[in-house]
Amino acid sequence: MDAMDTSRPKDKLHIGCAYYPEQWPEARWKEDIRLMQEAGFNTVRLGDFAWSALEPAAKVYDFNWLERAISALSEAGIESVLCTPTAGPPAWLISQNPDILPVDENGRRVQFGNRYHYCVNSPEFHEVVRNLVGGMGAHFGSNPHVIGWQIDNEFNRYCYCPRCTRLFQEFLAKKYGSVEQLNLHWTTAYWSQTYNSWDQIPLPIGPHNPGLMLEFKHFMTLSYKRFQQLQIDQLRPHLNERVWITHNFMDWHDGYDHYAMSEGLDIASWDWYVGMGNHDYLTSGAAHDLVRGYKRQNFWLIETQPGHVNWKPVNNALNKGEARKMAWHAVGHGADAVLFWQWRSPLNGQEQYHGTLLDTAGAPRLFYSEAQQIASEFSGLSEVIAGSKISADVALLNCYDSRWAIQWQPHHKDFDYVQHLLSYYRPLAAQNIAMDIISADASLDDYKLVIAPALLILKEPRVTHLKTFVENGGHLVITLR
Amino acid sequence: MDAMDTSRPKDKLHIGCAYYPEQWPEARWKEDIRLMQEAGFNTVRLGDFAWSALEPAAKVYDFNWLERAISALSEAGIESVLCTPTAGPPAWLISQNPDILPVDENGRRVQFGNRYHYCVNSPEFHEVVRNLVGGMGAHFGSNPHVIGWQIDNEFNRYCYCPRCTRLFQEFLAKKYGSVEQLNLHWTTAYWSQTYNSWDQIPLPIGPHNPGLMLEFKHFMTLSYKRFQQLQIDQLRPHLNERVWITHNFMDWHDGYDHYAMSEGLDIASWDWYVGMGNHDYLTSGAAHDLVRGYKRQNFWLIETQPGHVNWKPVNNALNKGEARKMAWHAVGHGADAVLFWQWRSPLNGQEQYHGTLLDTAGAPRLFYSEAQQIASEFSGLSEVIAGSKISADVALLNCYDSRWAIQWQPHHKDFDYVQHLLSYYRPLAAQNIAMDIISADASLDDYKLVIAPALLILKEPRVTHLKTFVENGGHLVITLR
Amino acid sequence: MDAMDTSRPKDKLHIGCAYYPEQWPEARWKEDIRLMQEAGFNTVRLGDFAWSALEPAAKVYDFNWLERAISALSEAGIESVLCTPTAGPPAWLISQNPDILPVDENGRRVQFGNRYHYCVNSPEFHEVVRNLVGGMGAHFGSNPHVIGWQIDNEFNRYCYCPRCTRLFQEFLAKKYGSVEQLNLHWTTAYWSQTYNSWDQIPLPIGPHNPGLMLEFKHFMTLSYKRFQQLQIDQLRPHLNERVWITHNFMDWHDGYDHYAMSEGLDIASWDWYVGMGNHDYLTSGAAHDLVRGYKRQNFWLIETQPGHVNWKPVNNALNKGEARKMAWHAVGHGADAVLFWQWRSPLNGQEQYHGTLLDTAGAPRLFYSEAQQIASEFSGLSEVIAGSKISADVALLNCYDSRWAIQWQPHHKDFDYVQHLLSYYRPLAAQNIAMDIISADASLDDYKLVIAPALLILKEPRVTHLKTFVENGGHLVITLR
Repeated sequence: MDAMDTSRPKDKLHIGCAYYPEQWPEARWKEDIRLMQEAGFNTVRLGDFAWSALEPAAKVYDFNWLERAISALSEAGIESVLCTPTAGPPAWLISQNPDILPVDENGRRVQFGNRYHYCVNSPEFHEVVRNLVGGMGAHFGSNPHVIGWQIDNEFNRYCYCPRCTRLFQEFLAKKYGSVEQLNLHWTTAYWSQTYNSWDQIPLPIGPHNPGLMLEFKHFMTLSYKRFQQLQIDQLRPHLNERVWITHNFMDWHDGYDHYAMSEGLDIASWDWYVGMGNHDYLTSGAAHDLVRGYKRQNFWLIETQPGHVNWKPVNNALNKGEARKMAWHAVGHGADAVLFWQWRSPLNGQEQYHGTLLDTAGAPRLFYSEAQQIASEFSGLSEVIAGSKISADVALLNCYDSRWAIQWQPHHKDFDYVQHLLSYYRPLAAQNIAMDIISADASLDDYKLVIAPALLILKEPRVTHLKTFVENGGHLVITLR
Repeated sequence: MDAMDTSRPKDKLHIGCAYYPEQWPEARWKEDIRLMQEAGFNTVRLGDFAWSALEPAAKVYDFNWLERAISALSEAGIESVLCTPTAGPPAWLISQNPDILPVDENGRRVQFGNRYHYCVNSPEFHEVVRNLVGGMGAHFGSNPHVIGWQIDNEFNRYCYCPRCTRLFQEFLAKKYGSVEQLNLHWTTAYWSQTYNSWDQIPLPIGPHNPGLMLEFKHFMTLSYKRFQQLQIDQLRPHLNERVWITHNFMDWHDGYDHYAMSEGLDIASWDWYVGMGNHDYLTSGAAHDLVRGYKRQNFWLIETQPGHVNWKPVNNALNKGEARKMAWHAVGHGADAVLFWQWRSPLNGQEQYHGTLLDTAGAPRLFYSEAQQIASEFSGLSEVIAGSKISADVALLNCYDSRWAIQWQPHHKDFDYVQHLLSYYRPLAAQNIAMDIISADASLDDYKLVIAPALLILKEPRVTHLKTFVENGGHLVITLR
Repeated sequence: MDAMDTSRPKDKLHIGCAYYPEQWPEARWKEDIRLMQEAGFNTVRLGDFAWSALEPAAKVYDFNWLERAISALSEAGIESVLCTPTAGPPAWLISQNPDILPVDENGRRVQFGNRYHYCVNSPEFHEVVRNLVGGMGAHFGSNPHVIGWQIDNEFNRYCYCPRCTRLFQEFLAKKYGSVEQLNLHWTTAYWSQTYNSWDQIPLPIGPHNPGLMLEFKHFMTLSYKRFQQLQIDQLRPHLNERVWITHNFMDWHDGYDHYAMSEGLDIASWDWYVGMGNHDYLTSGAAHDLVRGYKRQNFWLIETQPGHVNWKPVNNALNKGEARKMAWHAVGHGADAVLFWQWRSPLNGQEQYHGTLLDTAGAPRLFYSEAQQIASEFSGLSEVIAGSKISADVALLNCYDSRWAIQWQPHHKDFDYVQHLLSYYRPLAAQNIAMDIISADASLDDYKLVIAPALLILKEPRVTHLKTFVENGGHLVITLR
């Protein structure tokens, strides 16, 4: 199991929050930082959605306010994680280049103002992103208080614009070589779908040929992977060796293949929201194990809810003490950091009623003291945990291709790929049996038992891979689709 | 409490129905009027949706048939309320100027034929409306048998056309003075929504910045208020002093701020449909009190159902006697008129199966005799009621801004502004405590107790207003959002 | 009752399946045919969705593979029914003429690849269809092994393109003669819908004037009837007398008037899918009786499920023996054929998980032996059944106009025209009383009892027709709408 290092970092457990200094008068920062310090926070995340503030007009960059914020934080012993703000392209950019707006499944340009309003394949967008991220890398890359970077935020949008259609056709041409090969692999003889040329192939809107639908998922994965890499390439030359790059994933989100997306990253991180209801340690344990499996390393819990969210039908608060239980549970499953989202309730905006540590007026909420307790415990026990690692004898195999293929043709309305996988995870986890959730193509050398729930998509190398595991004495459980 | 006069009119209680003579052969009118007379009706409402008949081609007006109808009715002692027919622009107008059609949230032109197919801000539409309504005013304004006018019908459509977008931006520019001020008030630093120029600001489609959404509601209120005023300005010069102008509102409809819309009207009126189920005196009492609060005066119940409607999942008929109970209940809450919608079942059309007094063949339905009884009782008791007024010691404050802001971010799926308000109204009303439901900015001089349910939007003058009430000895109940 | 011949054919009961040789290597056909023969099949249906294979490029026809398949089948004693493949226009055609794609209710061009992606009124489409179907007729018309033809497949799409709009207006002009007449018949005075010229009349999108909506249904019926006739006209001259033409209907589908559509056909046929749940003999008995009533003759069950389908929320398999019960039940109600859809699971495509006789690997499924048993029984009993006929003393009247009119204004959410009709069918059928379900305008000479459930649309000839039946001693039951 080469390159896999699950050992706990030597220095500390990170605890902190997302902080948006650009939304508040600079005079207030001092008090915020004092309160963070009092809470025992050692880390903040900065900069996601700060594009308007970092580049208020085309090629007019203002990095100074951010530098002052990092500096003030560092004086209080708080390290910074910087985000590239590319999930929120500013109004001036959209205004100059409306073609950057993605097109939805219904053929309409997405509206400015709800985030992710960019076509991931727009060359004009790529150009401005390169300049901005490159500039940020040059400015902050060697700053000793910036310990890591997050690329964009929760990638999740598909685009159906004519450019994406053309690029999808080029992607297919490269992959299949000839239309005849594509026709053969997709069985297009079915329903008279035979293509004569690449330009006849549509993006799938709603149900379509499963081969076409699967390749569109592969294309979207590749599109985001390239866009992520484009940013990494701008940052990496400026960073010193210890500084890592991540993206904040959303556990079981299936918009792309997370294993492919994780390849270019140094560490995986994710955003954990219970949302409605309460923490269930089996469900969340599986989510942690899933994310730990993206890179087969410890991960960062880079966003989690301080009390409650604002986007569920019922936004109940967590019970007193629940956040503490969740934090330690996360650490137990491989989290090296717990960052709350976010610090203070904003004065307006789509998430005004989300849970925070400080209320709109800037005073600590009840939750603040819970966070304080967690920080204190983290600090006290970091040393004990240092160097520990998670090791499991059992692996569950997770496969996005299988999941997609099944969800398009589930055969029974209640058959859900993730729930099916969890039906194997839960009883074992309930007996405290440690598990890894990993790619169906990952090395199985360390495991005694491998469970492959609903592993529908089987190509020759994967079959050989599984056979070899069994021939070497491993136990393999294969389930129905 | 200046200009507020809640005393009952001296002459009579009005009772009658909506009547569409343009849909029937003129030879039939006599029999209709005879049956109305026998029913004891003293008032009809005419002309809504008669545009095709009043202006069958551009600038070709035919008011004579309507004049003959008014005259024939008056000979039977029946007074007329005239409606401007602007809610149903005719086919020739749309055909000549398709740009009048509004654009829906999905970017599509609304189709001709289901009413309200006009952009409220179209200057071309304004022009033809001015000519038509001015012509009607000139023709019927001094007719002694026309006692009142209704502008349009149940305003309820939003438009998302490029013209509305531009006018919205102009509205914002006028209100905020500078983009910087707008950015500040809307906290656009959140999610990188900062605007550099007015033309970057979109109409909100679906969820968006709450500041933007709230201003769009203000803009739509202003748009309808202007359109209503445009019509009032054409009528008023032709009317004698006793003739009033109204619009028929839909109780808790929230498409605009009803207090702003009521300012230009002489009296408020509304359309009361139980729809599915049966009359609940607490729910309908609150609706009456709400409408009475629009102008803080008695109002007209200008449409109500004769038995049943046709647009609910289940269109049950009211029980025998229920309409009578409803009519007197309405009078008890300040209605000076009860007009049934409508007289006779049409031969076709989208509302063919709605309740009526005469069936398709022109014969009285069972409900006819119920209406007759109500009319008889109204006639007998008008004198006793004359000059009475409704007075209340308790007021509930109603605020459209708060209602909108809460409904966009309710935090709990079951939290509903109106239901929350009613949860305070119902127990008091059940003990026969009279209440007014009024604007949160209305004078509170007459009240001992004021309840402000979920009054989320608080600006300085409103806070002062409420403080003063309490300082002067009033009791104020403020509830959670 | 002229031309009505319900006597059973002399030769045999047909049993078999849909077969798609174009999806498999030709070398495999022999084994498929051997297995069909062993199953006891005597009939297959071929060609639906084979356009890509029959005309791989514009005017480049390849009928040879199909001829070889028919020939190989005939050598095993299996007769062929050929389908025109027009429900699946190929990619090259759409690419050359995108205007063939229909426009949906939301104004968007339908996407290639899910079948029925053609505007039924496109003259360019008509042209290529004429050439292809004419060519197929010339090639296969005199083939003694081709016993019947199916036109297209399950007509079901509406188109809202500008061409259809214009043709609809022409249809109305022809029917009503003058706009004044149309205004009168539709009561357009209601809601100011009066038209001044034909070009003002829209296609109804969502609820609209019921007269307009009803005529749109008539127009769509006529459009499909013409398109069907266009194909029949290409085939008929090439066919010998015994060869019939059909279309495979979907029992209670209401996209058009099935009686009008059946006029040009020789026999009716239908596609019977239980879908979710299990066979209910009363529900399916009514469906058979309905289809038998289209032509008032025996019919073909031209598609039915081998075990399960793939397009329901729950795709349960039928119980063991259920298919046998269904097959004999169908024969009892007038089916002269039972063809399973389809033979073998395809390698890919939107219906990959539908029930079949052979699995993906080409091996018989469990269901294969059930089919074998049915075929064996059919063969043994054909002679006994020969010449039998279904005769009924009771008729239920079915009227598409009434059904449409009611469904647009049901007045109660649970009132469903078909369920209402079945509420009269079921108790009689449960007592083994044979019934016909026929057009409300069909001859009633043979019946003692006629039930007319919710017969809302009554024109003079229909009223006279029913009166005459009663005057001649018949019993007529008329129900509420």
